[in-house]
Amino acid sequence: MRALTWDGVRLQVAERPDPVCSEGMAVVEVGVAGVCNTDVEIVRGYMNFRGVIGHELVGTVREGPSAWRGKRVVAEINFACGRCAVCARGLGRHCATRTVMGILGADGAMAEQVAVPVANLHAVPDGVPDEAAVFAEPLAAAFEILEQVHVRPRTRALVLGDGKLGLLCAQVLHQAGASVLAVGRHEDKLALLRARGIETVLASDWAGDPAELVVEATGSAEGFAAAVRATLPRGTLILKSTVASRPEVDLAPLVVNEITVVGSRCGSFEPALRALSSGSVEVLPLVSARVPLDRADEALRVAQQPGVLKVLVTR
Amino acid sequence: MRALTWDGVRLQVAERPDPVCSEGMAVVEVGVAGVCNTDVEIVRGYMNFRGVIGHELVGTVREGPSAWRGKRVVAEINFACGRCAVCARGLGRHCATRTVMGILGADGAMAEQVAVPVANLHAVPDGVPDEAAVFAEPLAAAFEILEQVHVRPRTRALVLGDGKLGLLCAQVLHQAGASVLAVGRHEDKLALLRARGIETVLASDWAGDPAELVVEATGSAEGFAAAVRATLPRGTLILKSTVASRPEVDLAPLVVNEITVVGSRCGSFEPALRALSSGSVEVLPLVSARVPLDRADEALRVAQQPGVLKVLVTR
Ligand SMILES: [Zn+2]
Ligand SMILES: [Zn+2]
Repeated sequence: MRALTWDGVRLQVAERPDPVCSEGMAVVEVGVAGVCNTDVEIVRGYMNFRGVIGHELVGTVREGPSAWRGKRVVAEINFACGRCAVCARGLGRHCATRTVMGILGADGAMAEQVAVPVANLHAVPDGVPDEAAVFAEPLAAAFEILEQVHVRPRTRALVLGDGKLGLLCAQVLHQAGASVLAVGRHEDKLALLRARGIETVLASDWAGDPAELVVEATGSAEGFAAAVRATLPRGTLILKSTVASRPEVDLAPLVVNEITVVGSRCGSFEPALRALSSGSVEVLPLVSARVPLDRADEALRVAQQPGVLKVLVTR
Repeated sequence: MRALTWDGVRLQVAERPDPVCSEGMAVVEVGVAGVCNTDVEIVRGYMNFRGVIGHELVGTVREGPSAWRGKRVVAEINFACGRCAVCARGLGRHCATRTVMGILGADGAMAEQVAVPVANLHAVPDGVPDEAAVFAEPLAAAFEILEQVHVRPRTRALVLGDGKLGLLCAQVLHQAGASVLAVGRHEDKLALLRARGIETVLASDWAGDPAELVVEATGSAEGFAAAVRATLPRGTLILKSTVASRPEVDLAPLVVNEITVVGSRCGSFEPALRALSSGSVEVLPLVSARVPLDRADEALRVAQQPGVLKVLVTR
């Protein structure tokens, strides 16, 4: 099969052996894959990954249990052992011996086929098109906020950053009933939120009023300090981006203002698929470009261009 | 009156005007004051404070409402406006216009007398001696952990650091029913906890097994990274010390392991006074030295000597 591979030096579409369907696994024929900032980071050295990249996909089960064959699916990306104490607590996404699709020890989704544990499969509801379903993984990461923090109807939430994750987080908090203000640097991206009834402001025009809940989704080194300043005393700051650099961080304001910082990563897919099905979150306007698998290396370059949101890799 | 004053250059016991008892205030004759690490930091420039230092005291009300006069009291240190939105939420300790006794815009307790708002006074139960009551403020800060985090009977808690605050936090978590392991560098300090039935280990002997709840009470720049490593995925890290330096902090592990970092500062005095009264927390063994007010400048020097825990300033 063809696949987008990273060998530590070159990113290229190459011929690879088809994945083998072992016990407990399924082989999915990939319909659409999505480019994530993590893919870009991997090509910069993040996680020291080697292999097929990509962890956002929608596709059709070709091999595996008969109940799944032919089904249109998305797949959770953390492949847990299922037997350790962490897995027993229901935290398979934190299993110490996990592999992660296209990120850590497991080939990814920018390929004709990908092998995933059957336990990680989710059927896609009929009304959800492929180009929306491929957002299940990043949208699940946005819903993870609601698993970790109690968002009340009266919660005032700030979302800092209008990249893909920021736009998803703002929508998730909005549909959960919070009063959301999204702060960004791109008028056209913020307009996507305003079309959903979400209040937005350009960072340059923002008065800086702090809120009780702040989501750091800028991914910038300065973002953390700005987010701390934007969090009210006793408030909560959600850290969504794994900033690769190690900024000088002043932790004293966290103590003085008794701020809670919540690191937040992957989430479960069910609420994301429900939201895509009901339309409570809209993702299709976030699609900026489509690139065929044969030229998937270009997809990562396109994804890094200013103003570009989601880039999809298609058959 | 005599008072220990810091003018930005010199720390000295000097003559100062007696505090005036204005509306809503009381004047307390100080019986015993405690030296806190914050006092040491102030003399290094923290908060740019000028005036009488000290914020841990027990004393007797000399001026103020008749109901309070003659009473033995301790006093909360954050002097709130009582009228703003933050105060209306019951968060006076975070009032933006607050002054803080001996730390920010208000004279402190290493003096013959100190003025405090009547609202900040707490009567000391009869059975609690002065040298225990003077721990009400730091002990309240340790109890603040229980206000912020749900500590369950099955909670495994690590306390990193065997300074004054670490010893108080370990005891507070222990009496709350958690399974506590205190990690420190001083056999004699850890022995105080073992005498209370608390498990301890020298840092050099510690295997490093992570826990779901970790209290960072080392106050060292490396302490934060060590505490992050010691926190289980989805666990909680309590930040107790305002490290003055700005270490290079790697925030990525917080996101990857979905760790919650809870900044924690001052607490309310009621649970601290109850614990001192019932004996569920023991503080008298933490008293290392007593220095009379006339030589209070020495008290700060003594407090910085290795192995010293609490230094008290007496009449
Ligand atoms: Zn496992
Ligand atoms: Zn106030």
